[in-house]
Amino acid sequence: MAHAEIVDVHPDPKYVIRKGAPVAGKVALVSGGGSGHEPLHAGFVGLGMLDAAVPGAVFTSPTPDQIIPATVAVDSGAGVVHIVKNYTGDVLNFETAAEMAQAEGVRVRSVLVNDDVAVEDSLYTAGRRGVGGTVLVEKIAGASAQRGDDLDAVTAIAERVVANVRTMGVALSGCTVPHAGTPSFELEENEIEIGIGIHGEPGRHKIPMENADAITDRLLEPVLEDLALASGDKVLLFVNGMGGTPQSELYIVYRRAAQVLAERGATVERSLVGNYVTSLEMQGCSVSVLRLDDELTRLWDAPVHTAALRWGA
Amino acid sequence: MAHAEIVDVHPDPKYVIRKGAPVAGKVALVSGGGSGHEPLHAGFVGLGMLDAAVPGAVFTSPTPDQIIPATVAVDSGAGVVHIVKNYTGDVLNFETAAEMAQAEGVRVRSVLVNDDVAVEDSLYTAGRRGVGGTVLVEKIAGASAQRGDDLDAVTAIAERVVANVRTMGVALSGCTVPHAGTPSFELEENEIEIGIGIHGEPGRHKIPMENADAITDRLLEPVLEDLALASGDKVLLFVNGMGGTPQSELYIVYRRAAQVLAERGATVERSLVGNYVTSLEMQGCSVSVLRLDDELTRLWDAPVHTAALRWGA
Repeated sequence: MAHAEIVDVHPDPKYVIRKGAPVAGKVALVSGGGSGHEPLHAGFVGLGMLDAAVPGAVFTSPTPDQIIPATVAVDSGAGVVHIVKNYTGDVLNFETAAEMAQAEGVRVRSVLVNDDVAVEDSLYTAGRRGVGGTVLVEKIAGASAQRGDDLDAVTAIAERVVANVRTMGVALSGCTVPHAGTPSFELEENEIEIGIGIHGEPGRHKIPMENADAITDRLLEPVLEDLALASGDKVLLFVNGMGGTPQSELYIVYRRAAQVLAERGATVERSLVGNYVTSLEMQGCSVSVLRLDDELTRLWDAPVHTAALRWGA
Repeated sequence: MAHAEIVDVHPDPKYVIRKGAPVAGKVALVSGGGSGHEPLHAGFVGLGMLDAAVPGAVFTSPTPDQIIPATVAVDSGAGVVHIVKNYTGDVLNFETAAEMAQAEGVRVRSVLVNDDVAVEDSLYTAGRRGVGGTVLVEKIAGASAQRGDDLDAVTAIAERVVANVRTMGVALSGCTVPHAGTPSFELEENEIEIGIGIHGEPGRHKIPMENADAITDRLLEPVLEDLALASGDKVLLFVNGMGGTPQSELYIVYRRAAQVLAERGATVERSLVGNYVTSLEMQGCSVSVLRLDDELTRLWDAPVHTAALRWGA
């Protein structure tokens, strides 16, 4: 209702679709996952980003019954890219849906986002989790589709973003899934969880509270190491709020992260600060670094008009 | 650092100024107030909105020593409008600053924002408090200045927004001022505060938790009554998060508010949903309704390019 000029909501099975989709000749992008991470993914449906978002229940994968009709609905004939965060349920359900949609004549490619350097496997994952970097994949691949790239090219761009983005997060508090009614995990008053996932699932370890600079260093160090950041690299720095953290604190983290990047000889060419991939009311944040090249920067800058990300339009 | 293409930060005395200000021939807008309400006000400096924002310490008015140089710095000769939330400290310090800036040859007008219908006087206020509606005043008056309106016209537009916007808020939790270290007020697990201010100061009363629809009705009813909303009115509906509330919950409030407005025969022409006037990590929200006319709608739609609000640019 609040964004009726951008999206339509298909009530049953539930998915959110770009107004006017399918867009003739354009490759379509579909993403989805458990709810509770808003504005991800529905907030990113619109010009220059996603064509459909498929929400599951809170922290629960969407079903193939939702993903299949969303995929069919947005296909113009140019094919559909599924952007899937690496959680076992999401991967399975998107795989099933891709097969079924292909059986209906839709060409589907899948791109797996697994940017979280905190843990190799987790409660819900084989391999690394998909977290904050997902927004950057959706924006940049969305711009690729919007400018008219074909299915192979859009897929390649999305995979290039995945290959060049890393993330790590911290929680200062738990969060409560509504139908559970109690916090999914607890932290003591002066305790934080380093490497937290976006469903409150464990990260690397709990440690006593530290100041913002020290916490930022703990998040950034493994990100830069895994990315093999080199002097002269150009990057996009993304400080993402988990939902319950004041914006002023996100900018404190940003300041320190930008300072460390400068010390390493990297240039912060683009920035994003705010609540984009959240865990309900969890307090905390994540730091993502995306290594840019000229094409990725141009695609980042391209117009976007969604509920949660908008410029140039 | 994160928005260096939009703003410069003057370090001492501290204020945030639009890149390239003063803009030749343009009336300038200056606002400010205590920190802790981010993105208000610094997040609204840029094309089509504020020329400078003057932050005080957390929940503390900025001083004339900050406001005066910010006012002088952005004046192109066309004059400056101060947009002041109605708190005793802010009013006094902006008045003093206006007098001093005028003594330096700057024509200054002041517009007082007092949209909160919850209480007549409060801990920090004689008269009603300025809360969420401030964003709408800054956006619409900013567009008036950007299109080239003169000092009288911009002031009149700002006052027209003030005359037509009403707000009421609710808190589900307190918030902690960093240098205090403990919450400024406490709510029991199943208790909420209706008519809360944006500094944790008391509202109308504490009541037991209710469902979102019932809470929304409690917020909206006095807003619509005070606004004397009539069938056929066109409105902008603004659901503002206090900082710690998940976006999904803000949209639940939005749904109910839009439903009630439709039942009253009003048309929701424009919408805004998100964390724009916050109280650190407080959980809760406010509902603002602005009665639109064609000119206000056009000014709302005009391009804006700030850290926190951006479209058409």
